[in-house]
Amino acid sequence: MSFDVVAVRADFPILSREVNGKPLVYLDSGASAQKPNCVIDAINTAYSQEYANVHRGLHYLSSVATEKYEGVRATVAKFLGAQDGNTIVLNSGTTEGINMVAYAWAMNVMTEGDEIILSVMEHHANIVPWHFLRTRMGVKLVWVDTDANGDLDPQKMLDAITPRTKLIAVTHLSNVLGTVVDVKTICHGARERGVATLIDGSQAAVHMPVNVEDIGCDFYPITGHKLYGPSGSGAIYVRPERMAEMRPFMGGGDMIREVHKTEVIYNDAPMKFEAGTPGIVETIGFGVALEYMMGLGMDNIAAHERTLRDYARNKLEGLNWLNVQGTSADKAAIFSFTLEGAAHAHDISTVLDKKGVAVRAGQHCTGPLMDHLGQTATCRASFAMYNTKEDVDALVEALELCHRLFA
Amino acid sequence: MSFDVVAVRADFPILSREVNGKPLVYLDSGASAQKPNCVIDAINTAYSQEYANVHRGLHYLSSVATEKYEGVRATVAKFLGAQDGNTIVLNSGTTEGINMVAYAWAMNVMTEGDEIILSVMEHHANIVPWHFLRTRMGVKLVWVDTDANGDLDPQKMLDAITPRTKLIAVTHLSNVLGTVVDVKTICHGARERGVATLIDGSQAAVHMPVNVEDIGCDFYPITGHKLYGPSGSGAIYVRPERMAEMRPFMGGGDMIREVHKTEVIYNDAPMKFEAGTPGIVETIGFGVALEYMMGLGMDNIAAHERTLRDYARNKLEGLNWLNVQGTSADKAAIFSFTLEGAAHAHDISTVLDKKGVAVRAGQHCTGPLMDHLGQTATCRASFAMYNTKEDVDALVEALELCHRLFA
Repeated sequence: MSFDVVAVRADFPILSREVNGKPLVYLDSGASAQKPNCVIDAINTAYSQEYANVHRGLHYLSSVATEKYEGVRATVAKFLGAQDGNTIVLNSGTTEGINMVAYAWAMNVMTEGDEIILSVMEHHANIVPWHFLRTRMGVKLVWVDTDANGDLDPQKMLDAITPRTKLIAVTHLSNVLGTVVDVKTICHGARERGVATLIDGSQAAVHMPVNVEDIGCDFYPITGHKLYGPSGSGAIYVRPERMAEMRPFMGGGDMIREVHKTEVIYNDAPMKFEAGTPGIVETIGFGVALEYMMGLGMDNIAAHERTLRDYARNKLEGLNWLNVQGTSADKAAIFSFTLEGAAHAHDISTVLDKKGVAVRAGQHCTGPLMDHLGQTATCRASFAMYNTKEDVDALVEALELCHRLFA
Repeated sequence: MSFDVVAVRADFPILSREVNGKPLVYLDSGASAQKPNCVIDAINTAYSQEYANVHRGLHYLSSVATEKYEGVRATVAKFLGAQDGNTIVLNSGTTEGINMVAYAWAMNVMTEGDEIILSVMEHHANIVPWHFLRTRMGVKLVWVDTDANGDLDPQKMLDAITPRTKLIAVTHLSNVLGTVVDVKTICHGARERGVATLIDGSQAAVHMPVNVEDIGCDFYPITGHKLYGPSGSGAIYVRPERMAEMRPFMGGGDMIREVHKTEVIYNDAPMKFEAGTPGIVETIGFGVALEYMMGLGMDNIAAHERTLRDYARNKLEGLNWLNVQGTSADKAAIFSFTLEGAAHAHDISTVLDKKGVAVRAGQHCTGPLMDHLGQTATCRASFAMYNTKEDVDALVEALELCHRLFA
């Protein structure tokens, strides 16, 4: 099956709009992706025709909503190559997923002096929850740096393991450098040494086929709004033996079987970790988004984005006043950059915006990586399945304007 | 201004559909309310024309989304009578709100032997998080019962205060009995004694004007999906002096100012308590829902629902084989009931559904109340602003069928 980017673009209504009088060139999908009509329509239908609360009602609308909602568990499992839907906790995204691991698993199994290994290029969502364990419990954070290209040597992560190491938490794909991490080597090596692994799939699952069984990880959180799904949707894969080690995170309806004045009997996993009325319609829309991606084919999406990456890399390399952070050979189509001279990332982003080109400027929620790179802020152009070579050309043209303005 | 229920109903597309060949009579709004076109349209517009991540981008779409998202803070403050938007933490609903209070405030300020006072009619969302403190920290839960009518004597709540009491957590409006609690007396009495108060506004804010300044509470969580807004939306009012006592709950982007390998500097409140990409579009839709309610007028909504309550109460009292749980004089239009004889609540709900009448059957997430009432399950018809006397008639007619079938 081939990948028809023109047809794909036609599925995303926002891509035909203009910004500042120019056609929108949306290169901020790393922050959040746009939504196809099938997702928007599913949300519309859910609210206009099929809405009710889930799990709690026996009436028709509640049954329809529950069936659609619960069906997403199997869709996520299929998308991630997980054995079945019972390994999937539905939530609002990766931030909630990693916090659940921190509160429900790590705070339950770790003690003072235990160690967590992180790479320097983690997103704040995969850093701050571990700082909580550091400040509240005396857990030690051990950092592993990337090399000059932005590559992360899996052996360096494994070499950092000590008898006190309980967890390796590492991104599958850097949201700044675009680096793809060899998480399979890390996870299999960690597993041999009895160390748990959390792979932050926020970015990777958007751009490549993912199989958690093959990777061998214990936790794999993903984010719906980056996967062309609604904001406030997401999920996390949890290996059953780790699920068994988890105490509840949030308390409320659905996650219990019985509640009395003096006792609570919890529901079975994964429901035990889903408290209260969930993001019903968001989750339904998330399932539609994943089906849409699988319908296009994750290999096809990855191949299209590789072509974009090669085209963009070649073009950007031709700009000798542009510094690109992250030159890993097999990186994703994510380009963080700065301009030589006085131009601040925010000024560059503003000029690009005038040309309809949406990029992000700032720290990209990666403080330690910025410290490591010696940057206070960069611009980031992050590509998605609906981007084209013309989008790259528009970026380059706008960058050339920046260079003329600020040089 | 008068309240035109016909016009209101026309705003809710789902209300014109049929279920099982009968016009939908939706009496499950206590579980989740239906959505008006203005909310559905706002979601549609957000995803089709104005979508981007918030707070993090400088480009046009991100600015539009951020402005709309952040505007909701002031809307919630206005809706709740709070002094300003900085007292409002945006979240996914009451369950997350109360868990935040448990993890960020209570676990931070309480120690073993401290006491939390709860009423017996609390929802599991306002029970299970406190059980966490009981089992993990040795905090004591003190329960206050309702009387035979389902009323809660505020003096009994205040009399339960001891020198170890740190919090009174009580619902403003019972989701089963319909009882409206005199939370103002409780909050002012508690405040005089230095005890914090959490008022679960999940149900009350839907049915009556709420003013947190007048009530004098410390925490007031609300839920968007019950307030005619999207699933996965919500907010909590937090009194500034309590906000200052809170440590972060979830960690990630947005809630930090700086993150380094060895240190985190947190953002100012309320952002300090909002981690990661939020429910952007849900929150925007939530704001539209609150504006819609305020446009109709909370007093008008309350007056309409009082008329419905009186009509329904009168009709249901005429069914001498029906037991209604909760007979508080000023109750809301929420009726929990059982039928004399062998009929199980689930069977009743199924028969009603065949007639297009959607009610909920079960424990309604109120285990201790069910224990107190000696019930294993009840049916619940919960009315909302879009219900009519004809809906009451349809309920009564369907109940009479149940009586004939099961008597």
